[in-house]
Amino acid sequence: MERTAYRLADIVARLGGRAQGDAGTEITQIGTLDSAQAGHLAFLASGKYRAQLASTRASAVILGEADAGATDLPRIVCDNPYAYFAKVSALLNPPELAAPGIHPSAVVAEGAYIHPTAHIGPHVMVGAGTRIGARCTIMAGCAIGADTRIGEEARLYPRVVVYHNCVLGNRLIAHSGAVIGADGFGMAEEEGHWLKIPQIGRVVIGDDVEIGANTTIDRGALDDTVIEDGVKLDNQIQVAHNVRIGAHTAIAGCVGIAGSTAIGHHCRIGGSAGILGHLKIADHVEISSFTLIGKSIREPGSYTGIFPFSPSEDWRKNAAHLRHLAELADKIKTLQHEIEILKRKDR
Amino acid sequence: MERTAYRLADIVARLGGRAQGDAGTEITQIGTLDSAQAGHLAFLASGKYRAQLASTRASAVILGEADAGATDLPRIVCDNPYAYFAKVSALLNPPELAAPGIHPSAVVAEGAYIHPTAHIGPHVMVGAGTRIGARCTIMAGCAIGADTRIGEEARLYPRVVVYHNCVLGNRLIAHSGAVIGADGFGMAEEEGHWLKIPQIGRVVIGDDVEIGANTTIDRGALDDTVIEDGVKLDNQIQVAHNVRIGAHTAIAGCVGIAGSTAIGHHCRIGGSAGILGHLKIADHVEISSFTLIGKSIREPGSYTGIFPFSPSEDWRKNAAHLRHLAELADKIKTLQHEIEILKRKDR
Amino acid sequence: MERTAYRLADIVARLGGRAQGDAGTEITQIGTLDSAQAGHLAFLASGKYRAQLASTRASAVILGEADAGATDLPRIVCDNPYAYFAKVSALLNPPELAAPGIHPSAVVAEGAYIHPTAHIGPHVMVGAGTRIGARCTIMAGCAIGADTRIGEEARLYPRVVVYHNCVLGNRLIAHSGAVIGADGFGMAEEEGHWLKIPQIGRVVIGDDVEIGANTTIDRGALDDTVIEDGVKLDNQIQVAHNVRIGAHTAIAGCVGIAGSTAIGHHCRIGGSAGILGHLKIADHVEISSFTLIGKSIREPGSYTGIFPFSPSEDWRKNAAHLRHLAELADKIKTLQHEIEILKRKDR
Repeated sequence: MERTAYRLADIVARLGGRAQGDAGTEITQIGTLDSAQAGHLAFLASGKYRAQLASTRASAVILGEADAGATDLPRIVCDNPYAYFAKVSALLNPPELAAPGIHPSAVVAEGAYIHPTAHIGPHVMVGAGTRIGARCTIMAGCAIGADTRIGEEARLYPRVVVYHNCVLGNRLIAHSGAVIGADGFGMAEEEGHWLKIPQIGRVVIGDDVEIGANTTIDRGALDDTVIEDGVKLDNQIQVAHNVRIGAHTAIAGCVGIAGSTAIGHHCRIGGSAGILGHLKIADHVEISSFTLIGKSIREPGSYTGIFPFSPSEDWRKNAAHLRHLAELADKIKTLQHEIEILKRKDR
Repeated sequence: MERTAYRLADIVARLGGRAQGDAGTEITQIGTLDSAQAGHLAFLASGKYRAQLASTRASAVILGEADAGATDLPRIVCDNPYAYFAKVSALLNPPELAAPGIHPSAVVAEGAYIHPTAHIGPHVMVGAGTRIGARCTIMAGCAIGADTRIGEEARLYPRVVVYHNCVLGNRLIAHSGAVIGADGFGMAEEEGHWLKIPQIGRVVIGDDVEIGANTTIDRGALDDTVIEDGVKLDNQIQVAHNVRIGAHTAIAGCVGIAGSTAIGHHCRIGGSAGILGHLKIADHVEISSFTLIGKSIREPGSYTGIFPFSPSEDWRKNAAHLRHLAELADKIKTLQHEIEILKRKDR
Repeated sequence: MERTAYRLADIVARLGGRAQGDAGTEITQIGTLDSAQAGHLAFLASGKYRAQLASTRASAVILGEADAGATDLPRIVCDNPYAYFAKVSALLNPPELAAPGIHPSAVVAEGAYIHPTAHIGPHVMVGAGTRIGARCTIMAGCAIGADTRIGEEARLYPRVVVYHNCVLGNRLIAHSGAVIGADGFGMAEEEGHWLKIPQIGRVVIGDDVEIGANTTIDRGALDDTVIEDGVKLDNQIQVAHNVRIGAHTAIAGCVGIAGSTAIGHHCRIGGSAGILGHLKIADHVEISSFTLIGKSIREPGSYTGIFPFSPSEDWRKNAAHLRHLAELADKIKTLQHEIEILKRKDR
């Protein structure tokens, strides 16, 4: 594939920062200091990789003001080199645009509206009353239920399913296998049997959201499940009914969030963490991987609950005592008391 | 969409309980006390929400005998208001029935039998020898392997996959992305290589089972994997080969159950819990979220194993000592011994 | 279905070992000692099941040299009965071969190359520039992006998605719902917003790999995500961008592996375990189920970090003290000091 070349001067004109050294240097791709080749633009995101500047084969480098003098290579100096790298890479690697139009193998119900600039791939199904906005790309085998609304420039990779009556914002990216709007897990017990509670709420998703592969977001039971603007969800996440995730929160893979929990904005949740239902998590909360949050968190900050691993033999010895921790604490109390007595006698 | 209206008198005639106040009050939808509107029927599932009765905009309320006098609103008085709510909601929100027939884009193998009242959606694939029962709804893009049997009134949402030679009961609900009957993880080691063990058992699923989005149930290695009647599985659950799940057990999202484990009936398993292989879990066992069950459980009851979370700084301090818990216990033993000596001398 | 019968003599001629007793005994299927029927070949993988030899209804048995005299049944004596069982079962249960050819409902882009012996099922989509090797079976509804290469004899079950520009080895087995090559979770923060970092690496998968249902393997950010030969992945596993998994490593269900981590060869990772990003795990490491690995592991061996479960009431008592473990340790130190003083005075 022929790649477009950009001169450092072009890049700076578009994205800001300033070029130092030969601003005519041509760039066709981005790379790490370690693996970049001629024609590549590398980046120094943190001072600790500075030593690699000497050996990189990159044609140019992005770096911060503090490192501006650390190399003689042509370079772009900017405030936030990692963010700058993201922007240059987006410039050099634009998502492929699929041709507008509806593939003849797609099945679009009467009464669905597909914007003429949208692309509907092979074997896609679109339900009645559904609206798909301008410049959307709906790839092979996606199924969109009835009466759902998808904004502009959304990108659904193959085999995404969206149930009926959901609202998806602009520039949504949903990866393969994501399921949006399936029934929440709602049941009432009656004499040892479970009665299904119809899930009549929706899923409402804001703008600029990304949803990872095989992630599931259930529709609300009575009210809606809400994902606010700029939320980023990794793969294999489970979002239960009536959850609300605040704007710009990022959640890593395999996290489970139980029903009716509300997570603040700008939170970061590590992989395989869990959050129980009906809780409130404040804004700017960080939750470590593999941590279960069992109570509401009212203060921003970082929270952890991980059993530290060790060689299995050591673990066996230590874990056995965990089951007797309350007894150990009692023994200590007794010892303190007895020593107090001895000390008094001793006086 | 035009909604059907039911009078309280109609509802009570169908579902039992008794109407108090104006039994002619018309209801079109169900709602919470908090969000219900005119025309809605709200419910008081627990006395602790009684205060909301005063402010609700609902036209009528479902409540228990003990709360019958707590409001002047038209009301239905019954034994189990939450179960009653589930039934009214099912009456007001029946699942949409798809038209019988096979979509022309579906591919049905010769020798498959589709009941004439069943609906087979677009891009569905049905293998040879497979039988699909009366009033089933098989939505877009489902793939059903050969020689599989699906009972009556099953509802498979888009992109469910069922492998060959499985047996699925009546009224099954399977959500999108569920995979039923994939190979179990069976291998034998030989000189550092893994040999695949063909998985020749089936998946056998009883009646009235619900399977969540992206949940996977593997076929048996030699014998079958069995899901009994009335089991409810949330999203993203992994059920390994030869597992048996007892009737009316409910399992929340992201749980993993390893091979050949047998779970009793009427159990409740919290989200992201795990159960190791070859175990037996008694009936009426409750397992907390995020808990790993590593031994068989013989007594009904509630079981937990969660590392309590705390601010990360506190966690770091405490967790460090976990690796030395056996030493701490030893130190306590030594102290007890030394104090014993001191006390004796002291006499 | 008519099954092919093999005599013990035929089996031994193909797979080694030696027949004892009537080598003309005919076998049509494999089974456990417990459930085998007439015509079945059972196996004794471990001495502890020896008692079942007396009651089995199997027509013949596979066992090791040490157990050769433990039964009068016709038998095959070999070095590794479990591996032998795997091989006999593979002989008796060969995967069904689909007829070569492209189903008319499949959509194959111009410029894709499908080997004439490959099978492309209904509703499959194959992108431009993609090559699918000899004797591959690509089942219903799979979507393969552009410029991807699949080796020979790969078997993709229904609804597998492979993104563009990936490389998949020979004899790959991928189960339904697996997603290979979706974008890694790469973002840069700028003023409280997340900028997407284009994921321009590939997924490269070696030979003889098996990938479970709904498992996801993300493409690399700049470099590749690599799965080496003989790796076996169970269901619902998440492999993040730039991970490398060494040859013949086996990983059980629901495991999450964060970005840029390198796992050695011949490792075994238990279900629902997790491994943080940017770590190195040595060869021949075993990680227990439900264990989070938060640091690199340099020595082979077995590692665990599980909170042991107990009745919830006991757990509550013990867990409360976990939050004060550092204080408990301090108290013990104080006690040790005070006793030392008392002992000195006592002399």
